[in-house]
Amino acid sequence: MVRMERDTIGEIAVAEDKFWGAQTERSRQNFKIGEERMPSEIVRAFARLKKAAAWSNADLGKLSEEKARAISGVCDEIVAGNLDEHFPLVVWQTGSGTQSNMNVNEVVAHIAGESVHPNDDVNMSQSSNDTFPTAMHIAAYEAIVEQLVPELNAMRQVLTEKKEKYWRMVKIGRTHLQDATPLTLGQEISGWESMIVHAEKFIAQSSDHLLELAIGGTAVGTGLNATADFGDRVAKHLEADTGHKFRSASNKFYALTSHSEISFVHGAVRALAADLMKIANDVRFLASGPRSGIGELTIPANEPGSSIMPGKVNPTQCEALTMVAVQVMGNDTTINVAASQGNFELNVYKPVIIYNFLQSVRLLTDGMRSFRVHCLEGLEANEAVMQELVDRSLMLVTALNPHIGYEKAAKIAKTAFAENLSLKEAANRSGFVTEEQFDMWINPLKMTNLE
Amino acid sequence: MVRMERDTIGEIAVAEDKFWGAQTERSRQNFKIGEERMPSEIVRAFARLKKAAAWSNADLGKLSEEKARAISGVCDEIVAGNLDEHFPLVVWQTGSGTQSNMNVNEVVAHIAGESVHPNDDVNMSQSSNDTFPTAMHIAAYEAIVEQLVPELNAMRQVLTEKKEKYWRMVKIGRTHLQDATPLTLGQEISGWESMIVHAEKFIAQSSDHLLELAIGGTAVGTGLNATADFGDRVAKHLEADTGHKFRSASNKFYALTSHSEISFVHGAVRALAADLMKIANDVRFLASGPRSGIGELTIPANEPGSSIMPGKVNPTQCEALTMVAVQVMGNDTTINVAASQGNFELNVYKPVIIYNFLQSVRLLTDGMRSFRVHCLEGLEANEAVMQELVDRSLMLVTALNPHIGYEKAAKIAKTAFAENLSLKEAANRSGFVTEEQFDMWINPLKMTNLE
Amino acid sequence: MVRMERDTIGEIAVAEDKFWGAQTERSRQNFKIGEERMPSEIVRAFARLKKAAAWSNADLGKLSEEKARAISGVCDEIVAGNLDEHFPLVVWQTGSGTQSNMNVNEVVAHIAGESVHPNDDVNMSQSSNDTFPTAMHIAAYEAIVEQLVPELNAMRQVLTEKKEKYWRMVKIGRTHLQDATPLTLGQEISGWESMIVHAEKFIAQSSDHLLELAIGGTAVGTGLNATADFGDRVAKHLEADTGHKFRSASNKFYALTSHSEISFVHGAVRALAADLMKIANDVRFLASGPRSGIGELTIPANEPGSSIMPGKVNPTQCEALTMVAVQVMGNDTTINVAASQGNFELNVYKPVIIYNFLQSVRLLTDGMRSFRVHCLEGLEANEAVMQELVDRSLMLVTALNPHIGYEKAAKIAKTAFAENLSLKEAANRSGFVTEEQFDMWINPLKMTNLE
Amino acid sequence: MVRMERDTIGEIAVAEDKFWGAQTERSRQNFKIGEERMPSEIVRAFARLKKAAAWSNADLGKLSEEKARAISGVCDEIVAGNLDEHFPLVVWQTGSGTQSNMNVNEVVAHIAGESVHPNDDVNMSQSSNDTFPTAMHIAAYEAIVEQLVPELNAMRQVLTEKKEKYWRMVKIGRTHLQDATPLTLGQEISGWESMIVHAEKFIAQSSDHLLELAIGGTAVGTGLNATADFGDRVAKHLEADTGHKFRSASNKFYALTSHSEISFVHGAVRALAADLMKIANDVRFLASGPRSGIGELTIPANEPGSSIMPGKVNPTQCEALTMVAVQVMGNDTTINVAASQGNFELNVYKPVIIYNFLQSVRLLTDGMRSFRVHCLEGLEANEAVMQELVDRSLMLVTALNPHIGYEKAAKIAKTAFAENLSLKEAANRSGFVTEEQFDMWINPLKMTNLE
Repeated sequence: MVRMERDTIGEIAVAEDKFWGAQTERSRQNFKIGEERMPSEIVRAFARLKKAAAWSNADLGKLSEEKARAISGVCDEIVAGNLDEHFPLVVWQTGSGTQSNMNVNEVVAHIAGESVHPNDDVNMSQSSNDTFPTAMHIAAYEAIVEQLVPELNAMRQVLTEKKEKYWRMVKIGRTHLQDATPLTLGQEISGWESMIVHAEKFIAQSSDHLLELAIGGTAVGTGLNATADFGDRVAKHLEADTGHKFRSASNKFYALTSHSEISFVHGAVRALAADLMKIANDVRFLASGPRSGIGELTIPANEPGSSIMPGKVNPTQCEALTMVAVQVMGNDTTINVAASQGNFELNVYKPVIIYNFLQSVRLLTDGMRSFRVHCLEGLEANEAVMQELVDRSLMLVTALNPHIGYEKAAKIAKTAFAENLSLKEAANRSGFVTEEQFDMWINPLKMTNLE
Repeated sequence: MVRMERDTIGEIAVAEDKFWGAQTERSRQNFKIGEERMPSEIVRAFARLKKAAAWSNADLGKLSEEKARAISGVCDEIVAGNLDEHFPLVVWQTGSGTQSNMNVNEVVAHIAGESVHPNDDVNMSQSSNDTFPTAMHIAAYEAIVEQLVPELNAMRQVLTEKKEKYWRMVKIGRTHLQDATPLTLGQEISGWESMIVHAEKFIAQSSDHLLELAIGGTAVGTGLNATADFGDRVAKHLEADTGHKFRSASNKFYALTSHSEISFVHGAVRALAADLMKIANDVRFLASGPRSGIGELTIPANEPGSSIMPGKVNPTQCEALTMVAVQVMGNDTTINVAASQGNFELNVYKPVIIYNFLQSVRLLTDGMRSFRVHCLEGLEANEAVMQELVDRSLMLVTALNPHIGYEKAAKIAKTAFAENLSLKEAANRSGFVTEEQFDMWINPLKMTNLE
Repeated sequence: MVRMERDTIGEIAVAEDKFWGAQTERSRQNFKIGEERMPSEIVRAFARLKKAAAWSNADLGKLSEEKARAISGVCDEIVAGNLDEHFPLVVWQTGSGTQSNMNVNEVVAHIAGESVHPNDDVNMSQSSNDTFPTAMHIAAYEAIVEQLVPELNAMRQVLTEKKEKYWRMVKIGRTHLQDATPLTLGQEISGWESMIVHAEKFIAQSSDHLLELAIGGTAVGTGLNATADFGDRVAKHLEADTGHKFRSASNKFYALTSHSEISFVHGAVRALAADLMKIANDVRFLASGPRSGIGELTIPANEPGSSIMPGKVNPTQCEALTMVAVQVMGNDTTINVAASQGNFELNVYKPVIIYNFLQSVRLLTDGMRSFRVHCLEGLEANEAVMQELVDRSLMLVTALNPHIGYEKAAKIAKTAFAENLSLKEAANRSGFVTEEQFDMWINPLKMTNLE
Repeated sequence: MVRMERDTIGEIAVAEDKFWGAQTERSRQNFKIGEERMPSEIVRAFARLKKAAAWSNADLGKLSEEKARAISGVCDEIVAGNLDEHFPLVVWQTGSGTQSNMNVNEVVAHIAGESVHPNDDVNMSQSSNDTFPTAMHIAAYEAIVEQLVPELNAMRQVLTEKKEKYWRMVKIGRTHLQDATPLTLGQEISGWESMIVHAEKFIAQSSDHLLELAIGGTAVGTGLNATADFGDRVAKHLEADTGHKFRSASNKFYALTSHSEISFVHGAVRALAADLMKIANDVRFLASGPRSGIGELTIPANEPGSSIMPGKVNPTQCEALTMVAVQVMGNDTTINVAASQGNFELNVYKPVIIYNFLQSVRLLTDGMRSFRVHCLEGLEANEAVMQELVDRSLMLVTALNPHIGYEKAAKIAKTAFAENLSLKEAANRSGFVTEEQFDMWINPLKMTNLE
């Protein structure tokens, strides 16, 4: 059932049906910590990288085309997700990610055949110290561009539609949670839309820095054992493979020992999380009730609320999204603290950094999608409630000032408040304005500055 | 206008009217960073410590009683706050707080007279490395016990009064922001009261660890240059002076290089902050309106809200308190990260740790007092609103089940929801219950389990 | 392959071989967010709770003994881990954890047989709003007491052994990373040991609060639909089952809407993380080298370091442990922010809070065990290096003061520094002391205050 | 000594020599919380804004030129810092900053003379809700561009000089704190330089978003009471005044209720803090010693280290800078949590957000300057130490592989390690290489890939 594998420490038994080698097996046994696997995005990014490195080495005449082809073929299988079970390592291993680099080297070599050596061939011109941060950037960039950005676009579109649909539906504004001057629901939603538009800009701008790759720096940043142009060559192959304009990092010492690029991008990601928390909170407060809350919005009922009480719809999608948001806030602390802890030529918090980064991106993407599909798209305005709350509001009294003067207007408002009347009722009673005048002069839509 | 002071580096000019010496002056000039002064609580704690150390040295025959008396007298002046201007240093100095220790030594020696030497006498048997963490614990403990705990008591008392006052006033419950089964306002407030009761326990329990003092460990924890019982003696003098049961730390190496005690206590402090945020949010949402919010509570109007619109009372005290709460959350990150960064025999993040700790305690104390005096004490229930919201609610329908069966009850609720009727109206229309039966069977107070 | 299940929303298809019902299935489909499953500790805690609730209801005559026995039997299977595949839900669901409560209700009812109803029987006298926080406390307490505390004990024991072994081995002290007066390695290790001793106290003290359970509060804290003593009864059954002294919470409104108890305990947990970070950093810096670092310690070589360079042993276990520590710091941010976000009668961040709490405890437990077994136990002192560094140090010159006076001693030190000599060489050259005198007077062990 | 001021609540006494009015006085009395004043940068930004608003209103014919001139004149005095004592309010006030807006309005009106009204004239076309976030952006942008960026440039220059000076000085590399292949000190410093270069890019890119101003949105974002082009006009005047290309925000609802722009920029700021922590840690570890540490660098002695022990130079500037860095990490938590807490049309955590942001920028600017002037500029390489550590290292053995083969090379390394010899000594003894060959083949500089 087992075969013996060997490294410089000696022999070690590996399950017959697993393709990894001695160093992976040692890591498995020495780091029985938690259940958090090295993210599959990292494994796939490594495969892309190993393929690009193989072809670069072949271009340089350092690796035979035959070996390059063999390596490349296995990497394609890894990218396709067909070999996932052969990457068993957890996040909590060596801080350089060496063991995951070796895991890839070992699996590729094992499948590519006897003549391919994990270190001499698959890891040729490379070191864990430059490949792991390269894989971090590839995985992070792809997650941003292929997962998060499309969902941001999708969510923005729904918000744009809702904004347009409710562009002229007047409602009361609220500041300090207190009644304020009116706006339209469309205007309110346009604020949410603007949050997504800003997030997209922040994320696009900052993510561009992820295109810089550490590859070519090898062990300490000097590029020992790699040709001077190795980094550029690999970046070119990666661009051809992925379509993303990867480039060799301008300073490899920085690339191995600092992760401020990841931290900067996650700064944009967590700013998005804060805005999503705001949106989800607004939705659930505006949909609160059905009888004793604000009730301006109705959200879809996806699960049973109360068996006997109709209209009780728990804002469960908002809750999932806000839980995701606070998770991202915590991840942000982890990432930036970890980024501060580099020493000398290496930061050895790489796995925990990328684990948190990719978790944030995945949870936000999924959380937004779930919220969009199961809540936002089905969100509906309760126009009658909005209308009633605007009518009840005393804020509109300011519109009477130009016609009857400040003092009389204030007197009407005070009567309305003291006697719990609508403004219209109080105005009628006051004798200062007729009903026709009231309806003509009090025009909430006008106060929204839409027209 | 200046006099020349001298240390091992050479001469340096100090303003004639300032009592500090060369090392303080160098720190002033070398650390022009920010405006955050070393907290006055630390200066006062240092004065208590220097006094206790002087008498301990006198007890041991190492310091003349005359010098001890001179030192002691200056320390009393510092504690009284009469010498604040002579402690100019900022938080952002050496991470051991050495310069603030020297500041105290220099000022005390300067005033005590020529025969008293800052190092040989005022700092006798001590090192910055054990005095600064000792001062941290003294200051932190006093801030907790003399500032925060009394305010927690005061706030709890107000909550107890409000709880009792509104013990039987029924209101709608809200879970997921949706209408739920009723409770009384008193019950709701009892939850807030319980938060304060728990916070007091957490803080009392954890703060006990602050009574352990580093003093006696001197430079690296071995106690070199101090007698073995010096720590105990100082603790006894401090207890006599303050009434607090300070004791010598069981392990001085720990006391110099770990600040997990401070971190643990701040863990309790920030848990309080989270609960205060919850209370303040509840108050402002329950007081939202006046017309288009929930409106179950009224809070005092301390400032002009709107000049024309009556009843608009911004929950400004809630806002100040929640801002304090998020500040404490950030301070918590700073404190724990700093606590993790010790190396070998010393943690050199002491000033930033105690600065954040004391800021948290001061802001929470002041913020709670301000909230209590200007908001909580004047908080009033709008019984009519609560009554109306309970009456409007459909949740009460469950009380009809035992009398008319689930199906008929559900039918009434569905009619009420669909046609926007009160439960009572729908019940009347249904023909399943008479008005008298409805009033008899639907008893929200009973649903609160108070009776 | 599927069977139809039904809830108040309608029918839904569930895989034939899965035992969950309609509400679980809806949650699966509506919350496709991330891969983080509701922790198995929570599922097991729920099973314990459902069993205790069933017997409590049976005691009260509300549930037949037959049903109670059926429910109880399934719960035992869940606790044994035999039904894990039937709990598919993720963390990112409704914030009350309702769907996981229903998952347990549905699976238990399904297996217990037709006559047992998920809501009427398994959930009798309960609500998601009181069962989920109860399960949180059970799971958190068990994780602390059964996982973390034993590992703290084990680690402390190893530290005590190492301390005793190296109690008299002198080494240079380091403050500000600069050479300081000597201490013994045993003394240094005693500081680490004290960190663990303190952590155990902090954690034991604070965890006691987790014994308070929300059960009995039902939907909003009033206990509607449960008897007044239901909470006490369940706590008693749980105590009988687990041996832990669970008790009914003093205030159920607090128990549903505040999670400051969890936050307080995690404040102790993250203080431990900070101290572990300090210990792991000390170990790796003291073991740095082999030639160009400090090199006072040797740690076990568990993996190949460099194939050609002997003695290069990467401190991989330290790295895993410090990554765990920064993860815990981030989790701490998440937990406390989430704890601050309760509204009215419920905090709806329960799943994210307990997910982070349990992850912290699991990672610290595993990380400490791995560090202990693979690093700490095999850690060895390089006495020769320590001796050499002490000899080279200039700090020992202070011991000459009493014999030849400060000025001559300082002169020796300055010569040694300027000409890069050992103190002994400079002393010899100075003519102020003989070699015999030097060896007699300079006694580093004496400076450690051990004798 | 006092005069009576009045607002809609009634009369209130104000000190005769203070220029503020009733609302400022009420805030002073109602918010006795902490000592943290509203930052002076905000007061000055408000003055610039009020001036620009006055001229915009004058352009529009809404305000007389005479009044605009009067307002403008007072604003210039405020910007010049001549009126600081009249802005007494603390950070912990209403979360919209209304009271600080009124403080400015009142002081300007008071000095401008009787005909100028605080609300009608100074606050014309404005609301606290759009002026405060506008002042936040002005102050934040100016702090970044005028304080932080120049210091980043200055620090980068020093690093460039040091890099060039030490470009060819070889030293041992360190990864995992273990000896690794060599690099030059210049290369190592180039990594630090690259951190600053990246930080400048991150900060410049993200700060551009601060140029978007909320002004024109008035109370809820609709711009009620302001002309449609008011925001643009004010931005133009501000640009003329400051030279910064301010512009009216594309969406005012976003501008009042979201602070993700500030959060995004602070994400870049805290990434800088992480890199500074890394640099300062590297400097202090490389300068550790003088005898028992690494000792590759010497840093300036700015204060007395040890009176008797020469060469003990505590890295106090590193310590101040790393304390600043952890402060910024905590501020980051505060800012992003606060940014997530907006509700409906307003986020009411504005003062705490800007207080933390400006503190971060000020502390980093000052901390970097202090570190640069008092540490970095005087930092010197200890070439002899570096040379010795490289010579001692076993890593260089890899350079023998091509000449004598892997096995013999490894044998030499193992002998050197086992017998504690230098590589050269072991090589000599081995008989595999001559001394001349060793010196020819072992060329550490070549291994750095510089030539």
